[in-house]
Amino acid sequence: MKCGMSARGLLLISLFASVFAGSVSTLAQRQSVPAPATTLPVELLTDLARLRDAALSSDFALRQTAFLCNNIGPRLSGSPQAARAVEYVAGQMRDLGLDVRLEEVMVPHWVRGAETASLTRFPGMAQGTTQKIVVTALGPSVATPPEGLEAPVVVVSNFDALKQLGEERVKGRIVLFNVKFDEAIQDQGSGTEAYSQAVAYRSGGAIAAARLGAVAALNRSAGSTAFRKPHTGSVRYDDGVVKIPAAAISAEDAELIAYLAAQGEVRLRLVLTPQTLPDTLSHNVIADLKGSEFPEQVVIVSGHLDSWDLGTGALDDAVGVATAMEVVNLCRRLGLRPKRTIRVIPYMNEENGLRGGVTYFQNQRSNLANHIAAIESDLGAGHPTGFYAHVVPAALPMLRPLAEVLHATGAGIVRPVPNSVGADISPLESAGVPGFAPITDTRHYFKYHHTPADTFDKVDPRHLAENAAVVAVLAYGIAAMPQSLPR
Amino acid sequence: MKCGMSARGLLLISLFASVFAGSVSTLAQRQSVPAPATTLPVELLTDLARLRDAALSSDFALRQTAFLCNNIGPRLSGSPQAARAVEYVAGQMRDLGLDVRLEEVMVPHWVRGAETASLTRFPGMAQGTTQKIVVTALGPSVATPPEGLEAPVVVVSNFDALKQLGEERVKGRIVLFNVKFDEAIQDQGSGTEAYSQAVAYRSGGAIAAARLGAVAALNRSAGSTAFRKPHTGSVRYDDGVVKIPAAAISAEDAELIAYLAAQGEVRLRLVLTPQTLPDTLSHNVIADLKGSEFPEQVVIVSGHLDSWDLGTGALDDAVGVATAMEVVNLCRRLGLRPKRTIRVIPYMNEENGLRGGVTYFQNQRSNLANHIAAIESDLGAGHPTGFYAHVVPAALPMLRPLAEVLHATGAGIVRPVPNSVGADISPLESAGVPGFAPITDTRHYFKYHHTPADTFDKVDPRHLAENAAVVAVLAYGIAAMPQSLPR
Repeated sequence: MKCGMSARGLLLISLFASVFAGSVSTLAQRQSVPAPATTLPVELLTDLARLRDAALSSDFALRQTAFLCNNIGPRLSGSPQAARAVEYVAGQMRDLGLDVRLEEVMVPHWVRGAETASLTRFPGMAQGTTQKIVVTALGPSVATPPEGLEAPVVVVSNFDALKQLGEERVKGRIVLFNVKFDEAIQDQGSGTEAYSQAVAYRSGGAIAAARLGAVAALNRSAGSTAFRKPHTGSVRYDDGVVKIPAAAISAEDAELIAYLAAQGEVRLRLVLTPQTLPDTLSHNVIADLKGSEFPEQVVIVSGHLDSWDLGTGALDDAVGVATAMEVVNLCRRLGLRPKRTIRVIPYMNEENGLRGGVTYFQNQRSNLANHIAAIESDLGAGHPTGFYAHVVPAALPMLRPLAEVLHATGAGIVRPVPNSVGADISPLESAGVPGFAPITDTRHYFKYHHTPADTFDKVDPRHLAENAAVVAVLAYGIAAMPQSLPR
Repeated sequence: MKCGMSARGLLLISLFASVFAGSVSTLAQRQSVPAPATTLPVELLTDLARLRDAALSSDFALRQTAFLCNNIGPRLSGSPQAARAVEYVAGQMRDLGLDVRLEEVMVPHWVRGAETASLTRFPGMAQGTTQKIVVTALGPSVATPPEGLEAPVVVVSNFDALKQLGEERVKGRIVLFNVKFDEAIQDQGSGTEAYSQAVAYRSGGAIAAARLGAVAALNRSAGSTAFRKPHTGSVRYDDGVVKIPAAAISAEDAELIAYLAAQGEVRLRLVLTPQTLPDTLSHNVIADLKGSEFPEQVVIVSGHLDSWDLGTGALDDAVGVATAMEVVNLCRRLGLRPKRTIRVIPYMNEENGLRGGVTYFQNQRSNLANHIAAIESDLGAGHPTGFYAHVVPAALPMLRPLAEVLHATGAGIVRPVPNSVGADISPLESAGVPGFAPITDTRHYFKYHHTPADTFDKVDPRHLAENAAVVAVLAYGIAAMPQSLPR
């Protein structure tokens, strides 16, 4: 999951969306009378139940996640690991007998370098000492001079406070945006809202600080639970504003600097030596389980294959790719061939460019009518309670039988939303393609994603299988329905 | 808290000790009839209640903790920060009007260097890639060659498994002790037991591995909650066994290596460049609030001033020092002068040598009879439920009135134990000096101590004040009692 696109979308969801319970539940009864559910052929319902049950007992998605994280590792766009992941997933899909092609995508190629920070002056310090600051560069931060830069730190708690300081008190300084991730909101289940609030400073901090003459911008990690974790992610630059080095520091280090800065001058030395290399060739994997009746009609199941480079991109987003792979694995194992094509797309470059999602959209611009639906999993693999549906109201009754199948696993909620539900599929959604995503429990996701601790051990095998069940039933159901979804 | 000394003592406590409730509670009622409590003068009981209440509303200990962690920082023995901490605390005690002297202690001087690790070969790896391993050297690990060493990794789950492999399969290799910290036991409240189990491999791993010809020893972090945290601490070397580099890796990285090693060869490059410099002069601070009647008789309140160097030594053990400082601060503020001397000792070098505790004991060898009691706080500052009492049974009735004063804050339990309750005071205890320590809630302590995340923000102000109340009532009560404790 990247900076703010899907997070903001989901924020809007929680503000505006109404809940639509897919099965005959008290929630549904509270709604104004819903349209009657479309019925599906009994055979299809039986197949969907088999898919659901097979997903829950399969470890295929888990093994794929393990391979991507452990045997390959971090998969930042342009890296050898990202290339290896493309090759690996394509091979796995070919082994399942799918039609596989690689779609060329030119991606940014940013490479992390040294990154250290320390306080060189602060109240009370002993001669010849320092305090180490845990720091990580944001992508695509520019570098400091190789020996680093050193400047006083000014701490602000929001953009308004920065503006009030004005150029005189910001120029030549390092700005620290000390904005806390709202763990209370996260623990209520609205982690995306807490993330949106914090991430505004990660993505927008460098521009705001540079406009007032700052020499670098730091933000407090846009994540929850303080274990001295740096949280990386993307930072924006504007052509009209000087690009200054941008990095995140851990929550603890932000607290430390704020404490010391309240007592007197704090100076910080920052060394960041990342490199922005020329754009490089990479690929989306496009793997088709061809439809039997309408092979030209496509239902996309997707996640993103690239990841940030600090952890091994387990929750963000090996699990999403593995879930999509599991859908076609289960179809193969159960001998199910959908009427319409199920297309697995592990997108490239969701994190720092969205080039994969945009390229696919551009290449399919003349073929959008054949895109029946697009599903993306990019919010971890916590227990799912159903799925988000970015659809026209007329589509909802057709989704109810699918939700009923998922009701048995606690995932029977259909939540209609007015905004995109996945960054990579957002261009398709903007053009009217129905978009879907599992509704995952995100209470743990924001502790880990974009940090060194986003590793395979954070994946709960049962919850991953539950996500696969949601996406499999949704994808196969839509691909095998008598009618295609209205839009 | 260091490797295993107090942890093992406390393990014995949990195995053998019986609970003795200090106040008239159901716990006490369940015991076989306890000896009647000694009564204390009403005036003294009133003073103790005033101390307790003043502790709960004071922020002195919190401010001292903040200064030690934030304005000074990590305080590894021999470092400039450790020297600064000695000078600072001595100054604070002088400001309170205490008699302060510095006791010379020669301490080990180990300095952390570069520390990096990466996998150079593993099943499935892409050409030209690696997996980064989060590593931290144990003190006083020897260094690798400056360019590092590279060898295959062999993973074992305990010492027996290592022995079974034998020299043939260990020689020339790096041994990883992949021993999980038992979070279930910790969450029940017995973190010290879980720590003892895991720490056996941290402290003893290098010797066991070197005996079979290994070139380095790694252990899985001896701490709970995986956020890619490395947990440092001490490693033992024997004169008769070759010293090999020893380091901890995060739980995630141990899982990763175990996963890959089950599939095929895993090679690791390890770079550790610590230096062991000549022993250096440091100090225990000894600050006396002189007794009015028996100034030669001493009740020690203590913690350790040194810390490991990854975090800022907040829970381990700035809080212990600050608690001891708070005791005399409160006595001053309330105008209380005890009959016997209350001696604040921030010990030096608990973590990697225990030189401070041993030096003090040696210097006081002829004066032990005047040491009435020794209290040490070195197990964090979680909510206290009472205090451990390493005393003869005849002393218990004299402690009950103190426990009754503490009952109001939920800290009324007196738990008699047969072993030392604090590393620094353990030499005194071995010689018969009654030893005491707060019984703290350790469910969070082992997530943080010895890691980069042991920082000031982890201190709960209310719980710290509760600890100060326990130590203040205990210290002043013992120092002001009509009789001294039997031994």
